[in-house]
Amino acid sequence: MAEGRTERIKKNIAAYPDFPKPGIVFRDIFSILMDPSLSADLMALLEERIATICPDADIIVGLDSRGFLFGMPLALKLKKPFAPIRKKGKLPGVLKRVTYSLEYGSDVFEAQSDSIKPGQKVVIVDDLLATGGTMEAACKLVSDMGGEVQLCLVCIELSGLKGRDKVPNPCHSIVQY
Amino acid sequence: MAEGRTERIKKNIAAYPDFPKPGIVFRDIFSILMDPSLSADLMALLEERIATICPDADIIVGLDSRGFLFGMPLALKLKKPFAPIRKKGKLPGVLKRVTYSLEYGSDVFEAQSDSIKPGQKVVIVDDLLATGGTMEAACKLVSDMGGEVQLCLVCIELSGLKGRDKVPNPCHSIVQY
Repeated sequence: MAEGRTERIKKNIAAYPDFPKPGIVFRDIFSILMDPSLSADLMALLEERIATICPDADIIVGLDSRGFLFGMPLALKLKKPFAPIRKKGKLPGVLKRVTYSLEYGSDVFEAQSDSIKPGQKVVIVDDLLATGGTMEAACKLVSDMGGEVQLCLVCIELSGLKGRDKVPNPCHSIVQY
Repeated sequence: MAEGRTERIKKNIAAYPDFPKPGIVFRDIFSILMDPSLSADLMALLEERIATICPDADIIVGLDSRGFLFGMPLALKLKKPFAPIRKKGKLPGVLKRVTYSLEYGSDVFEAQSDSIKPGQKVVIVDDLLATGGTMEAACKLVSDMGGEVQLCLVCIELSGLKGRDKVPNPCHSIVQY
């Protein structure tokens, strides 16, 4: 049953060679969202991971911006708070920041200081785990705020890039390439 | 009953003066998402608007990126496809584009060419209607693709900016300031 759903999702994720640059094959989660039955299966699989691994999580954190697509429905379904981690300059108020390295240069993630409270059990949600740099940064930011990352949950993992080796907290993906 | 929910949401949307620049009061929908009960009420109100105005809509379109937060759960709940409209360079594949004016310069919105089909009835979702420039551009893009915008649905409308005067299709908001 679970295999059937996962396989169906995997074969329907569109692949775009050489996007956003030569040599990269872009796996496009939006192709799943075009089909309500595939979307529903994907959300059910994500929800089941949370129910199995950390049913008592306190808050769902979504990464800007495709993480919003999955984090928000999960928060609604599970009746938990949702908080964003966004790129620099997009959130108002008092913020916590983390700087992280990119292939060229660096970037900054921000969260609102009152969004994650010390001791809260946190699930971080994104669409994709590639090199692991953004998930690693998100874990550091949550940890700096006193949150305890119980689960990093992604739809797609590019296993060959070994991104999960960088992530300091438990990491789960629905489909792997 | 509906008034009670709307009032409670309105008074819990945080306001940040002088963000992102002096003179602007930023209305932050993320303050609602911290409270699962407020989130649920907001989603129910959005869903009721669609049920009332265009129950036979074919597809939900979410605007990058806070529109994703509301568009995706609505698509899941209503068992309809979800498609994104994104800023330039973020979507792979064959795209349709629209260029629109900002206060200084211009920006580009993109959609995947196969995401909205000619004749489809479309609901466009975003968090906020301010000057109306982005919603106007989104309507143009959907229309250029042959879609029929039945409803532009936002959580927050800054009525004083008269954004809805720019939007060529029916526009509804949950709370107004």
